[in-house]
Amino acid sequence: MPISLGELATNFACELIGDPDVVVDDVASLANAGPSSLSFLSNPANMQQLSLTKAAVVILRADDAGESPTASLVHENPYACYAGMAALIHPAPSYEPGIHESAVIAKTARIAASAHIGPNAVIGDRSIIGENVYVGPGSVIGPDCVIADDCKLIANVTLTRRVRIGLRGIVHPGVVIAADGFGNAKTPDGWVKVPQLGGVSIGDDVEIGANTTIDCGALDDTVIEEGVRIDNLCMIAHNVRIGAHTVMAAMTGIAGSTVIGKRCLFAGKAGAVGHITICDDVVVSGKGMISKDINEPGVYASNFPAEKVSDWNRRVAHFRRLDRLLDRIAKLEKAAE
Amino acid sequence: MPISLGELATNFACELIGDPDVVVDDVASLANAGPSSLSFLSNPANMQQLSLTKAAVVILRADDAGESPTASLVHENPYACYAGMAALIHPAPSYEPGIHESAVIAKTARIAASAHIGPNAVIGDRSIIGENVYVGPGSVIGPDCVIADDCKLIANVTLTRRVRIGLRGIVHPGVVIAADGFGNAKTPDGWVKVPQLGGVSIGDDVEIGANTTIDCGALDDTVIEEGVRIDNLCMIAHNVRIGAHTVMAAMTGIAGSTVIGKRCLFAGKAGAVGHITICDDVVVSGKGMISKDINEPGVYASNFPAEKVSDWNRRVAHFRRLDRLLDRIAKLEKAAE
Amino acid sequence: MPISLGELATNFACELIGDPDVVVDDVASLANAGPSSLSFLSNPANMQQLSLTKAAVVILRADDAGESPTASLVHENPYACYAGMAALIHPAPSYEPGIHESAVIAKTARIAASAHIGPNAVIGDRSIIGENVYVGPGSVIGPDCVIADDCKLIANVTLTRRVRIGLRGIVHPGVVIAADGFGNAKTPDGWVKVPQLGGVSIGDDVEIGANTTIDCGALDDTVIEEGVRIDNLCMIAHNVRIGAHTVMAAMTGIAGSTVIGKRCLFAGKAGAVGHITICDDVVVSGKGMISKDINEPGVYASNFPAEKVSDWNRRVAHFRRLDRLLDRIAKLEKAAE
Repeated sequence: MPISLGELATNFACELIGDPDVVVDDVASLANAGPSSLSFLSNPANMQQLSLTKAAVVILRADDAGESPTASLVHENPYACYAGMAALIHPAPSYEPGIHESAVIAKTARIAASAHIGPNAVIGDRSIIGENVYVGPGSVIGPDCVIADDCKLIANVTLTRRVRIGLRGIVHPGVVIAADGFGNAKTPDGWVKVPQLGGVSIGDDVEIGANTTIDCGALDDTVIEEGVRIDNLCMIAHNVRIGAHTVMAAMTGIAGSTVIGKRCLFAGKAGAVGHITICDDVVVSGKGMISKDINEPGVYASNFPAEKVSDWNRRVAHFRRLDRLLDRIAKLEKAAE
Repeated sequence: MPISLGELATNFACELIGDPDVVVDDVASLANAGPSSLSFLSNPANMQQLSLTKAAVVILRADDAGESPTASLVHENPYACYAGMAALIHPAPSYEPGIHESAVIAKTARIAASAHIGPNAVIGDRSIIGENVYVGPGSVIGPDCVIADDCKLIANVTLTRRVRIGLRGIVHPGVVIAADGFGNAKTPDGWVKVPQLGGVSIGDDVEIGANTTIDCGALDDTVIEEGVRIDNLCMIAHNVRIGAHTVMAAMTGIAGSTVIGKRCLFAGKAGAVGHITICDDVVVSGKGMISKDINEPGVYASNFPAEKVSDWNRRVAHFRRLDRLLDRIAKLEKAAE
Repeated sequence: MPISLGELATNFACELIGDPDVVVDDVASLANAGPSSLSFLSNPANMQQLSLTKAAVVILRADDAGESPTASLVHENPYACYAGMAALIHPAPSYEPGIHESAVIAKTARIAASAHIGPNAVIGDRSIIGENVYVGPGSVIGPDCVIADDCKLIANVTLTRRVRIGLRGIVHPGVVIAADGFGNAKTPDGWVKVPQLGGVSIGDDVEIGANTTIDCGALDDTVIEEGVRIDNLCMIAHNVRIGAHTVMAAMTGIAGSTVIGKRCLFAGKAGAVGHITICDDVVVSGKGMISKDINEPGVYASNFPAEKVSDWNRRVAHFRRLDRLLDRIAKLEKAAE
């Protein structure tokens, strides 16, 4: 959607340095922008690209505005400002309300008139689908689910049963919510399945990445609070609670009954063992595994960066001989006495 | 389903301390139980919750019965006993036999009359579906599969072809069984795909978690023996064999042709390289990677718990300077001679 | 398909030692081969199996031909030769052209007459499906996709939108391509979603394993070059570029905007952080995490093999006391002066 710089400045409370009547109809990186593109400078590493950009206008901080070769929209948070403007210029496609003829809807389900239920979607008994909800092709919503207004289930999503999703939730393809938690009781004859009777409760404004799984609780619900962002291929086990606005990058795994605070950040492949509590504002770096309660905000890590295999193998060999090293030091100390 | 304490005691061979005519109709944790709830005490860490519980009855060990403020069902394995009672009080939903009109069934497939084939399920040529099998919505069963009696494929499950599942199997949503193993032969012009011609053979009483993948064998079958439990997002590569009653927590990965013994336990994010043999009764702790044959039962580990990043980085720096450390010790030793 | 040794030798440019009129109709491992089986010897570790094989013929290198108890097809690359012969003897099933009556095809989609569109598949606006393409059951192809000739989407695949796949691509079940990249801008009120506007561009001869996810680019496309092989449960984040003929084993994760060279090899559970460049011909061993640019071809590692937990815990304790160890050495050095 084409929009003038003047309108953008007004709608997003930016200072405009440039002609308010110039119109943009596209967004692009600084390097690829053309004369009708909006771009942004957020990372100082891209400062050099700014000087060469052909964008119509660049969103940037006041301090950087002097370097811009083109019009500027000055904002203290250029990236967030860009996010909003990009959503305006490239609005998400809209969908016709209605239920596709190939969808299978239980008699006791309730579907808002403005909802879009796509081809081959299946909606189970007593489930409630709110206004403007988009249920994409092949999605299966089992019984007793509540999907609040303005949610999007993109395609081939599975909500097994008893899932509540708050307003404006986005669930990407292949996500499975409320599959049985992994509960097994040991007996001399093998494992007995422990019935998993809870549901999954998800707050407003939550986004869940492709092929992520969130298991149902054993008795009480698994809980994802509002504003949480979970990337692809993550695993949230039964009875986990994830605090508001926490972010988890891809392949993060959280074991059962662990409670995570607000505004935490798990980098890729991070994780936490079960039955622990992690306070607010904890950052776990890539591949880091939290193995006990964390009571102090801050950054936690446990990963080794890769090295040339010859260097790495030598270090691992040393590591495995630390016993002997200690003996040698003790002997030297004794001799020195 | 409401049931009296007397019936529970009889059916599960417990000693009842309390009124046999009291009726329970719900299960709950000690903390959340109400006056018609059954609860259990398995973990001694919850002993304090026992003293405060409002449950109608608690399953517990003989030694703990004296501490119960309410009726007791005494059993040596309270958790397994609870699993059975919970399944009785909250039976899994039953499904009408029959094939949904939207399901697509190959002419040469054979479906037992008592089976339930859900909406948009697809069943391929020559596949056989046993008595009381539940094939949930959107599931695709390719050709030449055999699903034994009482299996449940919850929803959006894919069995590519030549998959045999034993009695009472449970396959959670998003699982993919018998996709091609990862076989590539190197040539000067790039990789040539090696045909993957085997199937997957799964024993009785196996449960497979959401979005897990089990690849078909290259020539012979990939084999999962009876009683195995696999959690979500695990990867079982071609020609792996997993011994009976082995348990794998989420995100475990087993590379091709590895043979794993009986009653092993892989904690979350654990794994094993390909072409090795792991004996019975091996436990691999979280993130542990088995890299060679294991011939001795026991616990194996290779993970570092996360620490504050400043501490962690200092240790990693030391680790990377172990060469120099060794030099300094050697010099000291020489001086001491 | 039965075929004579003479024909095999001619078609694959092998030297045949044996009767050209003998016919094989099966492939098998050396150990399981029968009198009408073709087998191969590639790994010297299997030399002993060669002496006992009952195969009709064995593909092997010239140096090994003397050890064969049966006919030999001599080739310098027996495994690649086997791959081709196996595909000839056990050809992939063929499918009737046409669109299944349960598939849902957008009016503006274009489907080649020779393509097979399976039950419950969904194809979106403006998408183009080439000659001999197989779109398996339950697959969802969103708008603006281009699937080149001879591709196979096995089943329950999801291409969200703007995905281009080159000739002969194979996409296994549960794969999700072009879900939104993980772009979130921080604000005082929580995270704002950054629109993900790019697509995914995949070259010719690419194979993608079950339940892998490849996110769309934020602005430009995520790119997978020709001949790449990606195993199951991998994660390719937005704006990654993977060079031609690179191979990634299961559970590998590549974070956003990282550029990977040609002919690289990532072993299982390997990964790379975002915004780095990895040159051609890099091998990353299992669980290795690349954390900065790699400019030199070679093997890189960062994993510890599992040990008995008592040994492992002792080493980790030493590792955590390296500070003190250094102090002790410094004290000894001072004393020695």
